[in-house]
Amino acid sequence: MTAIPGLWAVIPAGGSGTRLWPISRRHSPKFLHDLTGSGQSLLRETWGRLSPLVGDRIIVVTGAAHEDAVRRQLPMLGYDAVVAEPSPRDSMPAIGLAAAILERRDPEAVLGSFAADHVVRDTDAFHRAVTEAAALARRGELVTIGVEPTEPSTAFGYVRLGESLGVDEAPSARRVEEFVEKPDRETATRYLTTGEYRWNAGMFVVGATTLLELLAVDHADMVDSLRIIAADPRRMRDLWPSLQKIAIDHAVAEPAAAAGRVAVVPASFGWDDVGDFASLTRLVAESTALPGITAIGPEDDVIAIDSTAMVATGGRLVALIGVDDLVVVDTQDALLITRPDRAQDVKKVVEMLTAQNRTELT
Amino acid sequence: MTAIPGLWAVIPAGGSGTRLWPISRRHSPKFLHDLTGSGQSLLRETWGRLSPLVGDRIIVVTGAAHEDAVRRQLPMLGYDAVVAEPSPRDSMPAIGLAAAILERRDPEAVLGSFAADHVVRDTDAFHRAVTEAAALARRGELVTIGVEPTEPSTAFGYVRLGESLGVDEAPSARRVEEFVEKPDRETATRYLTTGEYRWNAGMFVVGATTLLELLAVDHADMVDSLRIIAADPRRMRDLWPSLQKIAIDHAVAEPAAAAGRVAVVPASFGWDDVGDFASLTRLVAESTALPGITAIGPEDDVIAIDSTAMVATGGRLVALIGVDDLVVVDTQDALLITRPDRAQDVKKVVEMLTAQNRTELT
Repeated sequence: MTAIPGLWAVIPAGGSGTRLWPISRRHSPKFLHDLTGSGQSLLRETWGRLSPLVGDRIIVVTGAAHEDAVRRQLPMLGYDAVVAEPSPRDSMPAIGLAAAILERRDPEAVLGSFAADHVVRDTDAFHRAVTEAAALARRGELVTIGVEPTEPSTAFGYVRLGESLGVDEAPSARRVEEFVEKPDRETATRYLTTGEYRWNAGMFVVGATTLLELLAVDHADMVDSLRIIAADPRRMRDLWPSLQKIAIDHAVAEPAAAAGRVAVVPASFGWDDVGDFASLTRLVAESTALPGITAIGPEDDVIAIDSTAMVATGGRLVALIGVDDLVVVDTQDALLITRPDRAQDVKKVVEMLTAQNRTELT
Repeated sequence: MTAIPGLWAVIPAGGSGTRLWPISRRHSPKFLHDLTGSGQSLLRETWGRLSPLVGDRIIVVTGAAHEDAVRRQLPMLGYDAVVAEPSPRDSMPAIGLAAAILERRDPEAVLGSFAADHVVRDTDAFHRAVTEAAALARRGELVTIGVEPTEPSTAFGYVRLGESLGVDEAPSARRVEEFVEKPDRETATRYLTTGEYRWNAGMFVVGATTLLELLAVDHADMVDSLRIIAADPRRMRDLWPSLQKIAIDHAVAEPAAAAGRVAVVPASFGWDDVGDFASLTRLVAESTALPGITAIGPEDDVIAIDSTAMVATGGRLVALIGVDDLVVVDTQDALLITRPDRAQDVKKVVEMLTAQNRTELT
């Protein structure tokens, strides 16, 4: 794989990941952890997936509380490659600030934005999709990568494919008809049947200046503020808190799609956003030594008799006897036991702990 | 409650309790632990139940490995009150040695043998039963206390009641027709229906010399050895290993019952041998703050959403979401998750760990 000229990777490293408690914590969110047992944190894997495409043209945008941890995990990044947000304002201000910084460094810069906490299993297919997307972005398109659904998921938004764009360097590219919100199961099943929908994986490839121009349509003030901060980072403290908390999907992608300005590269590369322990269970292979058990951590730390479970160990032995379909997550100070179909409710535990002022556990 | 003249309490504190792993360990067996959340270990509770009856006339027989722990938990006992076995040889040598020691101290001594790891909820009823049993023992009987069954348990042996003895000081006393082994469920149900069966709780009250005479019928060599050791404890090392490993039930109670020599005081005092986590679940009251949860340890350490479980905490938070009928036992280095109906299989984990040479966890 050769690098893509002029492409910058922007990695928004945010989100609290409360549905992945007790691994993911307020002070140590999901992207800093090796959730899949790969030996690397999700952030580190994201860097490893992107660096062949962009070399050292990488910007990580993260919360001020996580800046040190990000720098420790990515010591190869220069000082300017990590941008700290004083407070979380969702994805638009984060990616928009990266765009404003990049257009100052390189007026022709194309950025690809890829979350720090997603998993991609087929790196080659991912690279091919980004290469096509970058080619389209250089032509002025806002490009998203639409992941082929493998099931009628209700956890993701969808992209409806339009006509082929007929671009030689991006042969699979299509126009985006629309972005649609997370559907119910019935609707999702219909989406799959038509073959005309892709998962919105939140991956955008776009010229830095193009992105700011699209954003300026509805949010001109935000663009002004972002460009001021990019020119003088000392203005971050006073301007950042005034920025609207908004996702890039709502601020730019959806209105631009409605205006026929968004392209999509459909692709299939084993993507997941690792949103909860149910998705983690699907991502990690079942143990060969322990049939029925998906172990995250050393398999020797699990003893299972007549049991099926996903077990994330935390340094102690976990013994299971006659239990089925469990999710067990053990950490130093907290233990979670649930079932895949209740994985979305894990955030309630964090809410309860917060309500009880037991934030040392959140 | 006044003390019973001439009665000595003998507390066999042995057994590995592998079905209560990971709380009960090789080096720290069940009787040393506060299994029920009462604030005291089972051994300490046993002492507290017996001392009103016997004052300081107590002998604890335990394994050499546990002698120090027993002395730490019962610092009020004199040096001679703790007898250490060099190796486990089941209950007959342990209780027989106590009898041989006691007959030297007091030829009229009556001993009551009560395991260190059982639970009794109605202490007054227990005291009344022991008082009757001691009166019979002074008349030369081998007396057992027969616990009224509250369910058709297949985990206990049973005692079949015979004719009333018509003794004024022990009005409820009956002859023992026979001891029967742990029955199957159908047989146990029939036992309950007849009303003529009691649980064999392994509680024996008998004159020290009477016990040794009964033992001498089939095991004269053992009696000789026990009396030699009692006279000269230095002989423990060479004689103890040669003693037959045998339970008092088989060595004395069953043959004596067949010869019409055993009496029983039927009683009802909320007894359990805390054999496994299923029995522990029945013993401990459900939490009022957490419906469906039986917590052993601080209730604040459990968060439960739509769950039912017995949870023994180990200092960390345990969060349950949408799980039912679980047994969760958390300790510093090992976590067990099972179901009440698999409680008997917990010992298999200990067997597996032993086979894997991971005895630091057993």
